[in-house]
Amino acid sequence: MSELLVVGSTAYDTIITPAERREYIIGGSAAFGAYAASFFTKTRLCGAVGSDWGPERTQIFTDRGIGVDDLKIHADEKTFFWEGEYFLETNTRRTLQTQLNVLTKFSPDLCDASRASSFVFLANISPVLQMQALRQCENVKLAVADTMNFYITNERDALLELMTMVDGLVLNDEEAEMLTEKKDLFSAGDQLLSMGPKFVIIKKGSHGCVFFAKDEIFSLPAFPTRDVIEPTGAGDCFAGAMMGYLASRDATDYAAIKKAVAYGTVTASFVVEDFSFDALRRIERAEIDARFEAYRSMLEI
Amino acid sequence: MSELLVVGSTAYDTIITPAERREYIIGGSAAFGAYAASFFTKTRLCGAVGSDWGPERTQIFTDRGIGVDDLKIHADEKTFFWEGEYFLETNTRRTLQTQLNVLTKFSPDLCDASRASSFVFLANISPVLQMQALRQCENVKLAVADTMNFYITNERDALLELMTMVDGLVLNDEEAEMLTEKKDLFSAGDQLLSMGPKFVIIKKGSHGCVFFAKDEIFSLPAFPTRDVIEPTGAGDCFAGAMMGYLASRDATDYAAIKKAVAYGTVTASFVVEDFSFDALRRIERAEIDARFEAYRSMLEI
Repeated sequence: MSELLVVGSTAYDTIITPAERREYIIGGSAAFGAYAASFFTKTRLCGAVGSDWGPERTQIFTDRGIGVDDLKIHADEKTFFWEGEYFLETNTRRTLQTQLNVLTKFSPDLCDASRASSFVFLANISPVLQMQALRQCENVKLAVADTMNFYITNERDALLELMTMVDGLVLNDEEAEMLTEKKDLFSAGDQLLSMGPKFVIIKKGSHGCVFFAKDEIFSLPAFPTRDVIEPTGAGDCFAGAMMGYLASRDATDYAAIKKAVAYGTVTASFVVEDFSFDALRRIERAEIDARFEAYRSMLEI
Repeated sequence: MSELLVVGSTAYDTIITPAERREYIIGGSAAFGAYAASFFTKTRLCGAVGSDWGPERTQIFTDRGIGVDDLKIHADEKTFFWEGEYFLETNTRRTLQTQLNVLTKFSPDLCDASRASSFVFLANISPVLQMQALRQCENVKLAVADTMNFYITNERDALLELMTMVDGLVLNDEEAEMLTEKKDLFSAGDQLLSMGPKFVIIKKGSHGCVFFAKDEIFSLPAFPTRDVIEPTGAGDCFAGAMMGYLASRDATDYAAIKKAVAYGTVTASFVVEDFSFDALRRIERAEIDARFEAYRSMLEI
């Protein structure tokens, strides 16, 4: 079993769905990713929060054994804040407010244990910060990055450089199209591979995902989940669980990655069943494994 | 092994893609469905064509052992004609021209062998004609119908009646939404089940399909196909191959249906690789089986 480092944002989110409004709930790519990964392996969380982040928030992570030495508290700042509204029927969302706050000060400076991590998940945040963290890791066996439309548009050069440094890239179909200007998923996948990473995973939300590597391709469906309450963090949990599983197996081969993608898929299927990662907080690893077996059985033909 | 009856349209299509224009190529829901089914079992084709349908067209079907006793030639009519343009990048199509021609005269009057079919695929055509054919079959073990937006809008009452007479309904996601007014796939699936059929398969094009029954649900991805030339008939071939496989096994149980859906998926993945069913005309059953094994292996986690 290897340890996993998760670098990214930790945030407060205010989320509006057709049914409900929730204020100042925990969000952020690294928060979701590390929480999901912690079901699989020893995980460290690297991020930055403000003075409004109470110790009871941190405890949610330490209760799951997540290392928080690199979760820096900036007393003179507020935590990164995002407010968004979901329109579930059209599968779209709208950003109402973004306050970068402490993220403008965030400069990853890893502790020795984090620097020794052999599995690194660079969750969605500025590619400049993703590179800064990755360069401090001296023992990397597998590094995977996520990104989003904002960085594709505004920090494209840094993102292109990051892509030459990582083994895998995870992004959704819209982002893949934005980054490659290819509408066809296969052309986008091929082009992304040519830009550096050894594999690319294109997420398609409720339609599952497609994995691309030089001589391999696979497509897996989402786990059929009827009770979608709120989808924030599903992609982060998908990638976090995937990396957590790979670290737990200390594996980077194709078969392990496929199984890891399946674990990511079923873990993400819990997250959407409640706000924040409340649904994950109610379950144990056994419930993920049970859903994994249901998923595996569903795919047996 | 049981025999399969396929009822529906036989047509000439003129198809425009970004790369090419093809005129008067063979199309029609029953033509595609029966051709795909013929890889699996003895198949009969029930349809109507005009005087412009040369015997060499019919021979394409008889060469595959398809029974054409119920393919009626109306000497004073022309074959049903459809002209459409595909915009592959946006995954949309536009109808340029529809000439019903012989379809206005079509009145299925099945031969004795067809009436004895225990597996019946009612491919996309007026639900009035689908019911007319089905009522002549006296030995039905499994009847599955496909439909489309035109009939949902214009022959809704007949379609609702048909749904109480069939075991299964196959339609795409837009049609499911149109018929149920539910944007959410699961709600649409539940509602369709409440309208009569024992199972419903909602096709999502390149995103695969979802199967709904009272206590069962499964989702399967499309076979990853890079070389999409032209998608006409993919859905018809999907359902035709599925029904052909079930008839070949004389089975209607859940496990067999799942395997049949997988066979439908891989058979459809050939069809999109060329115009009409030209790609299917180049292959043997062994190539479908080889792709089925690749698909099965892709889904092994």
